[in-house]
Parts: sequence; C-alpha cells; structure tokens
Amino acid sequence: MSVAAEVHRALLARGETISTAESMTAGLLGAALTQTAGASATYRGGVIVYATDLKSRLIGVDPELLAARGAVDPEVAAALARGVRERLSSTWGVGLTGVAGPDRQDGTAVGTVFIAVAGPDGTPHASAYRFDGDRAEIRSAAVDAALNCINDVVGERE
Amino acid sequence: MSVAAEVHRALLARGETISTAESMTAGLLGAALTQTAGASATYRGGVIVYATDLKSRLIGVDPELLAARGAVDPEVAAALARGVRERLSSTWGVGLTGVAGPDRQDGTAVGTVFIAVAGPDGTPHASAYRFDGDRAEIRSAAVDAALNCINDVVGERE
Repeated sequence: MSVAAEVHRALLARGETISTAESMTAGLLGAALTQTAGASATYRGGVIVYATDLKSRLIGVDPELLAARGAVDPEVAAALARGVRERLSSTWGVGLTGVAGPDRQDGTAVGTVFIAVAGPDGTPHASAYRFDGDRAEIRSAAVDAALNCINDVVGERE
Repeated sequence: MSVAAEVHRALLARGETISTAESMTAGLLGAALTQTAGASATYRGGVIVYATDLKSRLIGVDPELLAARGAVDPEVAAALARGVRERLSSTWGVGLTGVAGPDRQDGTAVGTVFIAVAGPDGTPHASAYRFDGDRAEIRSAAVDAALNCINDVVGERE
C-alpha cells in the first residue's frame, strides 16, 4: 500500500480530514493525496500559494514574517499548515515551502524544503530537508517527505 | 517544447499571469504549469476545491448553482475560472471540474470533464470532454486537455 493510501485509510477510520498549502510543489501533494479512490472522504482541498503575496492573501501568513524571513522558512511552513487547517475546516493541515531550483530564492539554497503538519493538538512542528537533484526530482522528493511526515503524525494518534 | 512550456513562454512575452481552480485533478494542473523553471513569473497559484463546499467558500461559486446542477457542470467550471482569476489577481483563470471515478458523481458519468478559461475579454467558454480509462488516466487526460485549452485561448490573442 502506498503511503498516500495508508494516510487515507488512517484518516477514514477516524472520520478525519486533511488539507494542503503548497508552494514549490504547486499541487503535487494534493494530487498524491487524491490518487486513492474515495479520497474525497478524507481530503478537503488546498491552496497553491506559489506567489509570495498569496501566502498572506489566501492563508493569512503574517506579511511581516514573509518580509523578514522570506517565503522559504520553517515558521512560514508552520503558518501555512495552521492557516489552511483553519480556513478549510479540516482536522489536519499541511504546509510545504521550499526551493525547487534551478535558482536560489531569497538567499536559500536549491533543494531546501520545510514541511509542517498542524492538527488538533497544537503548534505544528516543522521539519527541514535538503534534497539533491533537478527541479522535478526535488519536487518529487518533497512530496514523498510530506506524505511520510503526515503518516508519522497521523499514525502517532492511533 | 511541452504545451506547458509554450503557455509559459506566451504569457511571459506579454507579462501576463495565470491561476487555477481544480477539483478532480487536485493540483495536477498547477504542477504541470510549474514544471518549467521560471514559472513563478507567469503562474500565480491556485485552489484545489476538492470538497464541494470549498468551491463556494474559497472561490465564491454560487451555492444555489452547485445545489441545482452539482459540482460537475460547465457553469461551475466557468464560475471557478472567473472566481480564481479575480481572487488571485491574474490575467487568466482556469476552472476544471469532472469525475475521475471509479464512481459516478451527482449522476454524472465517470470521465466527464468541464474546463473553462477566463481572461480579460469577458465570459469564459467552457469545453466538455468525455475520457476513457482508469482514475489516473482520466486525471492525466484532463490536465492535457486543460493545457491545450489554455494554449488555444492565450495563443488567439497574439
């Protein structure tokens, strides 16, 4: 069973839902979470906040945080996770921001990725990654890491 | 050159941007439009309105239209395209709704897909499709059709 299918099954068993706020993966995480038939019972939806201003406009990330730290930052990932969870009324929210390349962004190296999962139990924990590869490989690695993060956090509560 | 890269090049040449409102593809269209390096100059972002209520909450699709026609409808696709264009402040907006399967939705057959592109010139035109295949094949065919729709509409203005 794929990690996405495991996440779907765990959420379904508890009647819980998830939503996503993605930047550099631009929808790949939402697509992965809906590969499984019946995903509409556990996946509510998401936002693709590719442009930096949309992180504030759609999800309410503090513009001062974005100005001070840039868009690729663990606190931004956490704010995306919290914000999408609240605005889309899901049990869990995932925030993913990073640099797919080929160029650095806001002084941050290509392959840097931050992923946060917010749930009913409080402040999300953001994990940091550094992936090698080309643009497609880095985006794919970020999605796999996010699915594993979600599975770990959702699994902990069983 | 891929169709996504053609779209990016055409938009970049005119300083225009695009955003997406997807249901059954759940992010695959956003991911396709950002495969090209430098996509942030032309792709602003999007919403994944997988749950029906999010089509109203995030994008402002009339709840009465959704109640009367269901989520898979050409007018819903047009409302998604108009709504995401306005709310994300992009030159173009794309709406995509359909049935990936394996089950029918709201009485609509598996493989039915509606795609609309809204731009500066007025009311979006929605195109209807009927794809064969499994869930993954139908989602992939819908993304390819959307990229061709966008390319046709954007290309017309050159």
